[in-house]
Amino acid sequence: MPTENELLRRLKSQKQTYPKGMRLAIGDDCAVFDVDSTQSIVATTDLLVENVHFRRSWSHPQLLGRKSLVVNLSDLAAMGARPFACLLNLMIPAELTDSLFDSFIEGFVTAARHWACPLIGGDLSNANLLQVGVTVLGVVPKGSEVKRSTGQPGDRVLVIGDLGLSRLGLELLESGKHSDLNQADRAETLSHFIPDPFELACIRAHLAPEPLLEAGSWLRKEGLVHAMMDVSDGLALDLERLAVASGLQAVITRTALEPYQSIAEREIDPDVVLNGGEDYALLFTASDEQVSRLQQIYPLTFPHFRIIGVLQQGPPGLYWGSDGTVQPCQARGFEHFR
Amino acid sequence: MPTENELLRRLKSQKQTYPKGMRLAIGDDCAVFDVDSTQSIVATTDLLVENVHFRRSWSHPQLLGRKSLVVNLSDLAAMGARPFACLLNLMIPAELTDSLFDSFIEGFVTAARHWACPLIGGDLSNANLLQVGVTVLGVVPKGSEVKRSTGQPGDRVLVIGDLGLSRLGLELLESGKHSDLNQADRAETLSHFIPDPFELACIRAHLAPEPLLEAGSWLRKEGLVHAMMDVSDGLALDLERLAVASGLQAVITRTALEPYQSIAEREIDPDVVLNGGEDYALLFTASDEQVSRLQQIYPLTFPHFRIIGVLQQGPPGLYWGSDGTVQPCQARGFEHFR
Repeated sequence: MPTENELLRRLKSQKQTYPKGMRLAIGDDCAVFDVDSTQSIVATTDLLVENVHFRRSWSHPQLLGRKSLVVNLSDLAAMGARPFACLLNLMIPAELTDSLFDSFIEGFVTAARHWACPLIGGDLSNANLLQVGVTVLGVVPKGSEVKRSTGQPGDRVLVIGDLGLSRLGLELLESGKHSDLNQADRAETLSHFIPDPFELACIRAHLAPEPLLEAGSWLRKEGLVHAMMDVSDGLALDLERLAVASGLQAVITRTALEPYQSIAEREIDPDVVLNGGEDYALLFTASDEQVSRLQQIYPLTFPHFRIIGVLQQGPPGLYWGSDGTVQPCQARGFEHFR
Repeated sequence: MPTENELLRRLKSQKQTYPKGMRLAIGDDCAVFDVDSTQSIVATTDLLVENVHFRRSWSHPQLLGRKSLVVNLSDLAAMGARPFACLLNLMIPAELTDSLFDSFIEGFVTAARHWACPLIGGDLSNANLLQVGVTVLGVVPKGSEVKRSTGQPGDRVLVIGDLGLSRLGLELLESGKHSDLNQADRAETLSHFIPDPFELACIRAHLAPEPLLEAGSWLRKEGLVHAMMDVSDGLALDLERLAVASGLQAVITRTALEPYQSIAEREIDPDVVLNGGEDYALLFTASDEQVSRLQQIYPLTFPHFRIIGVLQQGPPGLYWGSDGTVQPCQARGFEHFR
């Protein structure tokens, strides 16, 4: 089995581009960087744990490396921030180190290059299962981060990105229908293994999600958003969190989710849309004025947005609305920690 | 078992003091902070994995929470930085969450308060073992961080702090002689369980190490250090890393380690001093001029320093020196990752 020093050498052989202000990365006790005083720094961290968040047999280690970064980038997107750098804690079973390490790192570092978020530090350990902790640092112009607690009464609730697909992808993986997917090393090669376009979209959403960094930054820059967060634990649970943080009630328009969307003519069950989890969509609120501006200038290259409800005064929480009446909506959600 | 939301509420009930510039901590997608442009930011991350880095039966979860922060603060000390804030990834077996979570967090947050390094973000997951990943952010005056790669030919090699004690503490724990230590919830209460002062010092060094933040900052501020790192994998392996990073040879004076130190009249085997691991001492190099100044003004309240060798031109690596001759020294070290 390779030593930590050897693994570090293999890691360092991966070419990376560092942002301006990076003084020291990987190889000393700490990484060191300067940030211009016109910028605020944002920081987030997320875990991927074998047999809780993924099964090793479902996914190529390269895609796992990619996803472990993306789930954090999605949090950055939700603040309207851009990535700056990241740190990686990797726990690997000793007997798998040689087969997993290089692939995982290649997927991770390729993603880090793609989204301009270089790896600047980390730690390695044996463990009895494969487990990954990633910390991402990002920047926004000073004081301009978009919080989840700043929704306003009368705001519309909007979503950018797919809801429910990732959950259906998870169910497909659990069904065992596609048992050869751990050979697909990149998002692009999943299509070689999944002929059906709907199933491909679902599994891609689950194994190779895209962080909506451009859309998040754009909304912030254009001033078209009051509150924002990413949807990682299911729309219902996450919208409830936004509503409670903003001290308002979020009312979902029932009809807005039925049918939520269709790919290859197949529709998605509203319950899966509401409680699916791991969507990495952007959930945000905006005034009517902001929404009409959004409708005028929204870039065609971004995933489409959809209005799904409204924020209003009242006991904070999540509600259903139809025909002018409102009733509480129980978020079942998708809490990994159960 | 409690949900993640409930655990988050319990976590938030811990009072914390945030540094100036903290805009947002815990509860949104990311933490957000501003750093004055006269400061550089340093970042480091470390893992503690059950049955690799610790056994649950050896240590109270409060001490484990404390140590998981301290091992990272030691990296900050080695850059001459002061703590700013931290993020915590915690993996806990489902059946242990109720018994472990509050204790671990109390130990962690108490340490975070003590060393002015508030918790600003994190993630929680089930796992089959207890595992902890901590990321610490710190600050130094812009560009003044102390690297391991800037040792100069002719520098003396110095150490602040104890070497070898932690390893002897580990051996005591492994021997099973002190099987009730998991009841000692703080560094101070270990003495209730260990009457022998030497054994107490060893076990305290292992279970409740102190980060040498003040000494590290002081050396940087006084300009008395060329290169510095912390000793976490054993003096031999870490000094070899410093020497290689500086492109020089580090020559340890054989007699400097024999006897290295004595507590309660007991001496420590030089091999344990050299290859013990988890010492969290500071290893640094300084010119003769810096060393004489150090000898004049070194604060009596800091752990004592000791000169153990010299850096010189030659094939980079670790060497023994005695009576003017030099021979290679094989660092066995203490690589967890084996």
